[in-house]
Amino acid sequence: MRTTVGIIGAGPAGLLLARLLHNAGIDAVVLESRDRAYVERRQRAGILEQGTADVLRAAGAGERMDREGLRHDGIELRFDRRRHRVDFPALTGGRSVTVYAQTEVCKDLIALQLQGGGPLLFEAEALAVEDAGTDAPRIRFRHEGREDVLECAYVVGCDGFWGVARKAIPAGLARVFERTYPFGWLGVLADVPPSHDELVYARHDRGFALLSMRSPAVSRLYLQVPDGTDAEAWSDEAIWDELERRFETDDDWRLERGPITQKSVTPMRSYVHEPMRHGRLFLAGDAAHIVPPTGAKGLNLAVGDVVTFARALTHRQETGSPQLLDAYSATCLRRVWQAERFSYDMTALLHRAPAATAFEDRLQLARLERIASSRAAETDLAEAYTGFPFG
Amino acid sequence: MRTTVGIIGAGPAGLLLARLLHNAGIDAVVLESRDRAYVERRQRAGILEQGTADVLRAAGAGERMDREGLRHDGIELRFDRRRHRVDFPALTGGRSVTVYAQTEVCKDLIALQLQGGGPLLFEAEALAVEDAGTDAPRIRFRHEGREDVLECAYVVGCDGFWGVARKAIPAGLARVFERTYPFGWLGVLADVPPSHDELVYARHDRGFALLSMRSPAVSRLYLQVPDGTDAEAWSDEAIWDELERRFETDDDWRLERGPITQKSVTPMRSYVHEPMRHGRLFLAGDAAHIVPPTGAKGLNLAVGDVVTFARALTHRQETGSPQLLDAYSATCLRRVWQAERFSYDMTALLHRAPAATAFEDRLQLARLERIASSRAAETDLAEAYTGFPFG
Repeated sequence: MRTTVGIIGAGPAGLLLARLLHNAGIDAVVLESRDRAYVERRQRAGILEQGTADVLRAAGAGERMDREGLRHDGIELRFDRRRHRVDFPALTGGRSVTVYAQTEVCKDLIALQLQGGGPLLFEAEALAVEDAGTDAPRIRFRHEGREDVLECAYVVGCDGFWGVARKAIPAGLARVFERTYPFGWLGVLADVPPSHDELVYARHDRGFALLSMRSPAVSRLYLQVPDGTDAEAWSDEAIWDELERRFETDDDWRLERGPITQKSVTPMRSYVHEPMRHGRLFLAGDAAHIVPPTGAKGLNLAVGDVVTFARALTHRQETGSPQLLDAYSATCLRRVWQAERFSYDMTALLHRAPAATAFEDRLQLARLERIASSRAAETDLAEAYTGFPFG
Repeated sequence: MRTTVGIIGAGPAGLLLARLLHNAGIDAVVLESRDRAYVERRQRAGILEQGTADVLRAAGAGERMDREGLRHDGIELRFDRRRHRVDFPALTGGRSVTVYAQTEVCKDLIALQLQGGGPLLFEAEALAVEDAGTDAPRIRFRHEGREDVLECAYVVGCDGFWGVARKAIPAGLARVFERTYPFGWLGVLADVPPSHDELVYARHDRGFALLSMRSPAVSRLYLQVPDGTDAEAWSDEAIWDELERRFETDDDWRLERGPITQKSVTPMRSYVHEPMRHGRLFLAGDAAHIVPPTGAKGLNLAVGDVVTFARALTHRQETGSPQLLDAYSATCLRRVWQAERFSYDMTALLHRAPAATAFEDRLQLARLERIASSRAAETDLAEAYTGFPFG
């Protein structure tokens, strides 16, 4: 088997890249180790930056998003029983975000790809990327019980943190930057209309909580829990009770309860692999970098990476110049580090570290107070939340 | 001896308070444990916020400051061999800071006080504040070899971190917030014109460095050093060599050397005592809170405290209402915590922690990059540096 761009992974990065290349007339093959049902079901992010929504629209994958996605013009910060709204359009010259689940983005892109795109193989497990440093890299993979090889001009690893692509970059050429956190998020889906029409980020002495949503009928809620927590150890009632405490306000706001249909614990990690490219192998999304979910940046970073790659390769095909491809890693990393910084800061702003001192608690409140009282500080947050420019 | 306001400490807080009260027709006595020469010689801060300079002017203590002080419209951030200037007036609607040493502020205020102000006793060591919870607090002190008592209507403790005033607040009523840092500043005075006309804050892998000045002929320079460093262990040549390394740039900027006339090591600490008032005893300045020097906030916070007290007492005398006096602690603490936050953030932004990870190093650079590329982030810094509003 042979193609121009071999893409490992049919998450949003790999699927969007396939679409962007298809639209540019460049052929590609996508290999995905899981089956279609699994990919369309796994719960992940749900906040699309303005730029991400624009890219999906321009790629022809925005129709259902524009119909079913929820445009959000702000978020609420909740602390000390107070409520402060951050108004995105007013602070950023009109930018906003769209609430539309990653699973839905994947469903839309899979449908497009299967209709008229290049090959998309499910249950095709990439085993290794070979000869990444040469002009003829190859992906060895297993599909329908036998091993095969995909010969490529370029390989893009969109196979996530645990994928094989990154392993093809010699350790001696790489630098890894990492931070783990002593807490995670217990996330639940509940069949109840969200109790607020925008996301609520709550800082509480008992820990962080986040109110989000998947649709006007489905709430997505999170609780900061200690690292290693078992989701099943939390009864539905205990979850609702704890959410209620952490979202407490001085006004008559109330949290509505409903049946919890899914619960799981997500660990928190910051991770960057430099460089994001080795020869003809390019890493995109979680394969190269992880952010804690507090800044809602993971999916948006992945979109930035594949947009940058698609542009660079198109430029190469049109002009013969490898300049943008050569700059891929540096171009992406500028945006990645800003997202890492923002995600770290949002996490530190809102979570209660197990070893937090009274001084650090007061610093958190002073930071929130600053955001609530300074247009400059609030704008800094709004700009970052609605998205750093691509490239 | 009897007075309306007994002031402990003739640093800038105590001296300015005496002046403000004198101008309002309220009598006060200042007790200072050291002699005049010592007070006029001790090296401390040198950056006056716009609001601080305005207060000194309005109090009649601004004449020499306006003649000899240096108006600064910005600072330079130096990182990764790059130079980024933060333009204060452009970002804050015209605000700036004044470089004028704390020793000079003290000299000016002492001269005014001795000319026509109330009593200012040097070598008068406060031993204890008594009956702070009653309407008749007293300061026991030792002067010219014998003990005496100053009967007051109010006592203001401007006697610094190690003073006795804070001890008169029962521990059971107080909360202390504290943070120490594993590094300090080696500061030198040098008889050489400053190599840059504005302050330069340098973040370097070897540690933080600061270029400041006392006058057009005298440089004030600082190096981050490990906690517990002996200043005498650093030769003058070693200091200049290290400064040169940390201020390195890609252009032809050069550090000029000259004779070092003084060197000392300052430890770094964040500290807040709540409340700042107990009955008729009020704490101001370092007696209630300490900031690391990176944000240049210590002196300016002290000025804010005594302005707040003088206003509150004047209001009490004029209207009979204790409302502003009762609000003293809460009013000051709002500003104190913003200064604590800013001083902590500037310290974390620029210093290299001994245990810093590669991830944290990159976060620092990403933060500096953000300030250098986002007007909102830069404005946030400029607003804080030029000063939070009083009261």
